[in-house]
Amino acid sequence: MARSVLGPEIERLIQLLAKLPGLGPRSARRAALALIKKKDQLLVPLAGAMSLAAERVKVCSVCGNIDTVDPCAICSDPERDARTLIVVEDVSDLWALERAGAMKARYHVLGGTLSPLDGVGPDDLTIDALVRRCASGEVSEVILAVNATVDGQATAHVITDRLTATPVKVSRLAHGVPVGGELDYLDEGTLAAALRARTPF
Amino acid sequence: MARSVLGPEIERLIQLLAKLPGLGPRSARRAALALIKKKDQLLVPLAGAMSLAAERVKVCSVCGNIDTVDPCAICSDPERDARTLIVVEDVSDLWALERAGAMKARYHVLGGTLSPLDGVGPDDLTIDALVRRCASGEVSEVILAVNATVDGQATAHVITDRLTATPVKVSRLAHGVPVGGELDYLDEGTLAAALRARTPF
Ligand SMILES: [Zn+2]
Ligand SMILES: [Zn+2]
Repeated sequence: MARSVLGPEIERLIQLLAKLPGLGPRSARRAALALIKKKDQLLVPLAGAMSLAAERVKVCSVCGNIDTVDPCAICSDPERDARTLIVVEDVSDLWALERAGAMKARYHVLGGTLSPLDGVGPDDLTIDALVRRCASGEVSEVILAVNATVDGQATAHVITDRLTATPVKVSRLAHGVPVGGELDYLDEGTLAAALRARTPF
Repeated sequence: MARSVLGPEIERLIQLLAKLPGLGPRSARRAALALIKKKDQLLVPLAGAMSLAAERVKVCSVCGNIDTVDPCAICSDPERDARTLIVVEDVSDLWALERAGAMKARYHVLGGTLSPLDGVGPDDLTIDALVRRCASGEVSEVILAVNATVDGQATAHVITDRLTATPVKVSRLAHGVPVGGELDYLDEGTLAAALRARTPF
């Protein structure tokens, strides 16, 4: 009874908004109402931006970044040091490191961390692709910028083992990263300092 | 420099998402990434739901509710008591009262509260329309369900003054509503009790 007055279009909008990280049922209702009230300034432009993103955004076949071109702008940027790969768990970590702006290198997005309890094994991540990139001779250093969590560090160990057969030097972020912390929540100065002071792994 | 790697489509998506209530720049980035990763399950359906809402949702010309029909489903529901109008500041308050489900009446959405400091005067609200509805002889009771804030109570006084020239009885929500609180954050039991125990104004 309670919701039936909303009409199916508004109900569906609220239900979908509630699936966004950071929005619960109550904030989804507020967001829906704000969208409807600002139809021309917000609802219509956001619907358009979403359609455009859905149409154009793709995953980079080289590094796993998301962009509207493949290879992504980072992979095809000649100004960047192609011999250094920064390995991250997720695109959000890549964005965080880019905001820090400390190093003009390239990236490799793992797509997560190894997590036996959640059923995430090596084949669910892009570790094989990373090993291939490193074995090609085009890469001389890999910087492991994974989260300082148990799963992140276990993943770093597995990757380091796999990379011993390649000519690359493996380092990791300096211990400026708080233990148990996630990269995406760190301030940019801490990220930049941790990159500069990276230690051999 | 920092954001340029994102591409204009993703940047615009993040910028628009950050305008939603409850989402800041960081949570907008997380939401954008979640949308892109769940393209088929979330991004495409949400873009569609927004387009549909933009196309179909309109403001009810009788009560100010939003719906896909005008008059809205509440205004044209013969099961509801058309002689009782619940006056609310905002559509979100109407939704909150409907979730409480305590009273099958009709509504009048003011569109805000009088706020001289913010430049909101009587002409910016739907007070004149409320007076016209009450003068028509079709309404016998007006329940002022405005927020228990200074502006809300001042607005209630102005409305009560305007309605003395009409035949309606004016009441307000019982003091179960916490002073300074906003309706949309109240639990449904409190709202239902406050409606039942409404007092003459
Ligand atoms: Zn790439
Ligand atoms: Zn209506």
